[in-house]
Amino acid sequence: MKAVTITQPGGPEVLKWAEAPDPVPSDGEVLIQVAASAVNRADLLQRQGFYDPPPGSSPYPGLECSGRIVAVGAGVSGWAVGDEVCALLSGGGYAEKVAVPAGQLLPVPEGVGLDKAATLPEVTCTVWSNVFMIAHLRPGETLLVHGGASGIGTMAIQLAKAVGAKVAVTAGSKEKLDFCADLGADVLINYREQDFVEEIKAATDGAGADVILDNMGAKYLDRNVQALAVNGRLAIIGMQGGIKGELNIAMLLGKRGAVTATSLRARPAGEKAAIVAAVQEHVWPLISAGHVRPVVDRELPMSDAAAAHRVLEESGNIGKVLLTLP
Amino acid sequence: MKAVTITQPGGPEVLKWAEAPDPVPSDGEVLIQVAASAVNRADLLQRQGFYDPPPGSSPYPGLECSGRIVAVGAGVSGWAVGDEVCALLSGGGYAEKVAVPAGQLLPVPEGVGLDKAATLPEVTCTVWSNVFMIAHLRPGETLLVHGGASGIGTMAIQLAKAVGAKVAVTAGSKEKLDFCADLGADVLINYREQDFVEEIKAATDGAGADVILDNMGAKYLDRNVQALAVNGRLAIIGMQGGIKGELNIAMLLGKRGAVTATSLRARPAGEKAAIVAAVQEHVWPLISAGHVRPVVDRELPMSDAAAAHRVLEESGNIGKVLLTLP
Repeated sequence: MKAVTITQPGGPEVLKWAEAPDPVPSDGEVLIQVAASAVNRADLLQRQGFYDPPPGSSPYPGLECSGRIVAVGAGVSGWAVGDEVCALLSGGGYAEKVAVPAGQLLPVPEGVGLDKAATLPEVTCTVWSNVFMIAHLRPGETLLVHGGASGIGTMAIQLAKAVGAKVAVTAGSKEKLDFCADLGADVLINYREQDFVEEIKAATDGAGADVILDNMGAKYLDRNVQALAVNGRLAIIGMQGGIKGELNIAMLLGKRGAVTATSLRARPAGEKAAIVAAVQEHVWPLISAGHVRPVVDRELPMSDAAAAHRVLEESGNIGKVLLTLP
Repeated sequence: MKAVTITQPGGPEVLKWAEAPDPVPSDGEVLIQVAASAVNRADLLQRQGFYDPPPGSSPYPGLECSGRIVAVGAGVSGWAVGDEVCALLSGGGYAEKVAVPAGQLLPVPEGVGLDKAATLPEVTCTVWSNVFMIAHLRPGETLLVHGGASGIGTMAIQLAKAVGAKVAVTAGSKEKLDFCADLGADVLINYREQDFVEEIKAATDGAGADVILDNMGAKYLDRNVQALAVNGRLAIIGMQGGIKGELNIAMLLGKRGAVTATSLRARPAGEKAAIVAAVQEHVWPLISAGHVRPVVDRELPMSDAAAAHRVLEESGNIGKVLLTLP
């Protein structure tokens, strides 16, 4: 098969579309003939040499894909050769074939094309596990989403609105904020021009956000705690603003707040399967009913993954960048 | 009535046993003729002027008491004049009488004397709400308790052992650690001589603690995160080691960890009532069955509350310091 290989740590130019050995499904896994994959920020870190795949994972980038099952390993039930699926991967999605534990498979939702389904697993699993399974966002509460126009952000807005929450977003341009508003966001904050702590307080009668979904890490830590409501939960899923920050424990204690930090990729297969099952139960019906949709910024050939990485590095995207195979 | 009044912010000597107006129970409250109260660290902070009572609370110290109901306000059901009770207070326990919302009352557990029951509400509600309701300690998991010989610590050891967890404690002397061992603690760490991160890892095959109950705040923040296991939960309930500390978000994210910080006193009455109800359901049967007992370091007359505060300031206590009325 062919795969996007990382010739050495570096810029987008180190990504090469090259021959690679076919993966072989182990017990409990299926082999997927990939139709499409999609780009996540973790792929950029992996390319730069900052985020090695977990032990036993494919060395190629790609944390999600869609495609057709072409082989089924021993001990797999409920899936058959020919099934159209999408999958949460611990790597290897940027390739013509990938092996994946059956617990990480999802059917292609009704009304979504096979290619576009590749953009769903990471964002739905990340948002559902953090905002709902960990932070327990409830109807009537306020969610603040940093990077509202990102792949994660566009899904978080839709899911939070679907369960009856109020949604505030930050983004860096009017175009992105307008897009977030179209998806249902109630409070729009341009982080280049406005202070998100002041804005979220103004929008909540001074109360603050019940849940914050954060991709910035250290840079926003103190202000995120300031922006939390009493009983608020800060869910950190990225560290684009650094890894060590000062935590004001007195302020957190005064709010009876919680700070969590997670990544999806490092979770053992059992935890991933539990999240995927919850997503299929709670999110898939919303997609099939048309209440929630994949947001795709653009589609590029997988062989030109370098161009796709450049789009994310320039934050030029609204929603996901899709990588397709001919 | 008489009460321990704070004549001005300062050392133990500012506590004066003096005349004070009788409290009047509002709707939904009962009036208790106090038999005993007990000392909490928050009382010391309040005496120093660092921890004002929440709005509407008694100005006198005392976050718990035992005694007999002498009046019942409108809208209270299930309690009657003459009932022997103990209660979680938002203040005012260092007095001959105190008014308290009925939702914060607990019966005196079987087998516990009326005076000693005054030492139970704060430690049981703090430990149950943090270790079990927030951090969800499960059988087979490891709990690390800082200050294992404190009132909170001695209750945390017993409750965690009662549910089948492994318990590690830190304390500053062999005498305190021996006491913790007698209560069931499995791993004993002298923080003056040993590094608790190394010791907890050595005791858990390198895994770390699933839950940490921390009273130190900033001083221990980084080492607590180091000491956490994957999926670990750090529950901060005090800031004896400072209020601002550096949080290593990358390490927390790598462990999919959670940091929570709470106080009991500031919670609204409804949240307190929910915690008290859970304690009565889950903890009271363990006490009545003799599996868990109040640990009382010493008993002093309430009129000499200053002496009791000095004991806590010197960390001279193992368990609770009880304040009794004649």
